[in-house]
Amino acid sequence: MSVAAVAADRSVCAPLPVLGRDVRVPLVTGGEVDYAALDYAASAPALQRVWDDVAAYAPYYGSVHRGAGYLSQLSTDLFENSRRTIADFLGCRADDQVVFTRSTTDSLNLLAAALPQDTRVFVFETEHHASLLPWEQRADVDVTYLDAPRTPQQAVDTLEKALAEREPYGPALVCVTGASNVTGELWPVRELAAAAHAHGARIVLDAAQLVPHHPVDLAELDADWVAFSGHKLYAPFGAGVLAGRADWLQAAAPYLAGGGASRKVTRRVSGDGAGGVDVEWHTTAARHEAGSPNVIGAYAIASACRALTEAGFPELIAREQELIDRVTAGLAEVPEVQVLSLFGADAARVGVLSFVVEGWNSSHFAAALSAEYGIGVRDGLFCAHPLVRTLLGSEPQDPGECGAPEAAPGERSLNAIRVSFGVGTPDEHVERFLRAVKELVTDGARWNYHTEDGRCVPARSAG
Amino acid sequence: MSVAAVAADRSVCAPLPVLGRDVRVPLVTGGEVDYAALDYAASAPALQRVWDDVAAYAPYYGSVHRGAGYLSQLSTDLFENSRRTIADFLGCRADDQVVFTRSTTDSLNLLAAALPQDTRVFVFETEHHASLLPWEQRADVDVTYLDAPRTPQQAVDTLEKALAEREPYGPALVCVTGASNVTGELWPVRELAAAAHAHGARIVLDAAQLVPHHPVDLAELDADWVAFSGHKLYAPFGAGVLAGRADWLQAAAPYLAGGGASRKVTRRVSGDGAGGVDVEWHTTAARHEAGSPNVIGAYAIASACRALTEAGFPELIAREQELIDRVTAGLAEVPEVQVLSLFGADAARVGVLSFVVEGWNSSHFAAALSAEYGIGVRDGLFCAHPLVRTLLGSEPQDPGECGAPEAAPGERSLNAIRVSFGVGTPDEHVERFLRAVKELVTDGARWNYHTEDGRCVPARSAG
Repeated sequence: MSVAAVAADRSVCAPLPVLGRDVRVPLVTGGEVDYAALDYAASAPALQRVWDDVAAYAPYYGSVHRGAGYLSQLSTDLFENSRRTIADFLGCRADDQVVFTRSTTDSLNLLAAALPQDTRVFVFETEHHASLLPWEQRADVDVTYLDAPRTPQQAVDTLEKALAEREPYGPALVCVTGASNVTGELWPVRELAAAAHAHGARIVLDAAQLVPHHPVDLAELDADWVAFSGHKLYAPFGAGVLAGRADWLQAAAPYLAGGGASRKVTRRVSGDGAGGVDVEWHTTAARHEAGSPNVIGAYAIASACRALTEAGFPELIAREQELIDRVTAGLAEVPEVQVLSLFGADAARVGVLSFVVEGWNSSHFAAALSAEYGIGVRDGLFCAHPLVRTLLGSEPQDPGECGAPEAAPGERSLNAIRVSFGVGTPDEHVERFLRAVKELVTDGARWNYHTEDGRCVPARSAG
Repeated sequence: MSVAAVAADRSVCAPLPVLGRDVRVPLVTGGEVDYAALDYAASAPALQRVWDDVAAYAPYYGSVHRGAGYLSQLSTDLFENSRRTIADFLGCRADDQVVFTRSTTDSLNLLAAALPQDTRVFVFETEHHASLLPWEQRADVDVTYLDAPRTPQQAVDTLEKALAEREPYGPALVCVTGASNVTGELWPVRELAAAAHAHGARIVLDAAQLVPHHPVDLAELDADWVAFSGHKLYAPFGAGVLAGRADWLQAAAPYLAGGGASRKVTRRVSGDGAGGVDVEWHTTAARHEAGSPNVIGAYAIASACRALTEAGFPELIAREQELIDRVTAGLAEVPEVQVLSLFGADAARVGVLSFVVEGWNSSHFAAALSAEYGIGVRDGLFCAHPLVRTLLGSEPQDPGECGAPEAAPGERSLNAIRVSFGVGTPDEHVERFLRAVKELVTDGARWNYHTEDGRCVPARSAG
């Protein structure tokens, strides 16, 4: 079902309960309000359900894998069952592996380390640094950075051309985002996967921003790997996932060397007495999971997968689309606001939007949203510097001090403001955000702000 | 104050409350008992205090570092304050760095990746695989494996000789455990650090087993780095630490490439259009912490550091020494039990002991402790294969099926049983363990056991 069809269906559910929904924060103008967490794209609050599952399990926590005790065996089962739950959630094929990492960044660094010798990597300049930077750490890997496309079709055409023209026509990997962490726009993953495979390449999907909002089915998308983080999937307990094809992972050196990854270690004494050690490494997911696993982190991700599946993605998407429509319509009423987009105003997106406000330093605007309205957004370049600069048409330089002087009308912004939301967001947060944007643009901030220890903070009353 | 002096002081405190202290588990022989968690050396239960701190913070969780909202700034402060708490706990010098990792294994892999070109590494064969294996992953690093010493002084002498004789006399690193994860024995860290420095080498302390039991002061020990894990320090939330000298860490390539580690990323377009990216990396701890940090994991470790400091190490050590004395005395009364030791019966140790039982397969013995007494210990080679084989005098081969046939009297064991405890262990767990050992040795197991899916489990009643 398309996003539009789902939205039209209007079977909209209520927000799912998340931690922090009752947290009150002080306003610089006096009083306090419910905190409006609108920075889900950086880190989402834990689902109440995830927290409850973790809290119920925590007393039963025990060492996994080699412990002989009851809680060790229970914890081992829970850990390995979490792996299976996540495999099901991602539509993994029978022989795919699910490796627990600490984040999307860690997952993509693992895959970079596991590439066959002399693999060529193709990546759009529009990617998050986690998808952009791991590949060049490999001295033997040649990376092709592709220009930002301006339509989904142009993305496919650009990739096809680059893959077809590669020399030599050896092993290749495409790394692509499912939904941009800056614009929220959906990328044509299925088409890019088809293009990659048509040209003898493999593809990894950076689903950090997609998986909290849309179902991701590896088999259906015909993608080779998917990477994502627990902390953006309502499970902020330090775990992430790389899931997909086993062959490259099995053939690669272990990501971390240590216990758990090693099946057998034998001292080899040579003639001169120094010798060395011989190691048999596992070929299962354990190969890349040395050290005691983060059982609670893995279980939290599995719990989030269950909670989203049970709530139903069609209903969740319908509700999110309502919020997206409301935000885009509301921001369109403010001529000073320019929403950043690669694919144009009608592009399908998740609940992530970045924008600039004419005449405002973005850090100043974000600080005023926080201090005067209790709204948490993000400002900056969002760990996607080349993309944001392309969207802003700005040069690489550091944003100025916030507040004074403000950017002159017509001057290009050096950074942007991002608002993002998800399954826990109530209507009121979005309504308050839109009201705040309009008031700030019309009336200005009620306080002065200045930069202190790198943060833009309230200075003194402007009244 | 020496361990003996502390123990003699007898200002013994009560166990600290931990999660799981009221968990009941079923016995194969009928009924249920309080679970006796005696596998602290693998993973310790969370301190109640740590859990309470995490639970109190969780609703305030927000994205750290670049978020403009109130909870983002609160979370950033909490994360960076956790770093300072841990630095104080470890006696870090002013210019040391505290890097958050996911575990000791991860910390030592990070340090291995950060070694200057052509560093020589010296490590005893007695180390845990996490300390033994990371170094050879570097093709340019030459590793010298030192034979197991039989006294602390022999360890120092062996190291001195190896360091003095190294050719060329270039950069060198010694990696040594603070307390063995197999025998629990304390290593002469201060003396080994002095030996390393006298010979122009640096030293990293694997404190995974030391830091939950004893104060570790980097400045006082004159060690260069220390590595440990949260999950052995009563804070099982997926985080670990590498702390120490900043220079090698600042000079090394980032451990993970991605956001957070990168200060500025710029697309460089070359003549042929492909170009590349230029990256300015941070030189702070963030350099090696790419991706969203595990805020809850870091905060949990800081909470544990505060809890142990406030309870007082002298009191905690005195209590643990009582338990150690009781276990060693109790096991000494059973002639069939052989406790494994490098340094002899009088060696100082933490609450970690491994042993074998004549005529018993160790997996069988551990399974009976669990199924018939509700006691969780560990069996195997404890991710320290060369050490355990040296202690057992056994050849590298897989342990047989558990239960049947049992090892014949006089036959060498192929693996061992480890019992370990800490600040949450009540007297009753230790008393039940000693009673169980005596009953099993005297009367045999009441059930039959067999191997199923790699686990030794109860088969059917032997009655």
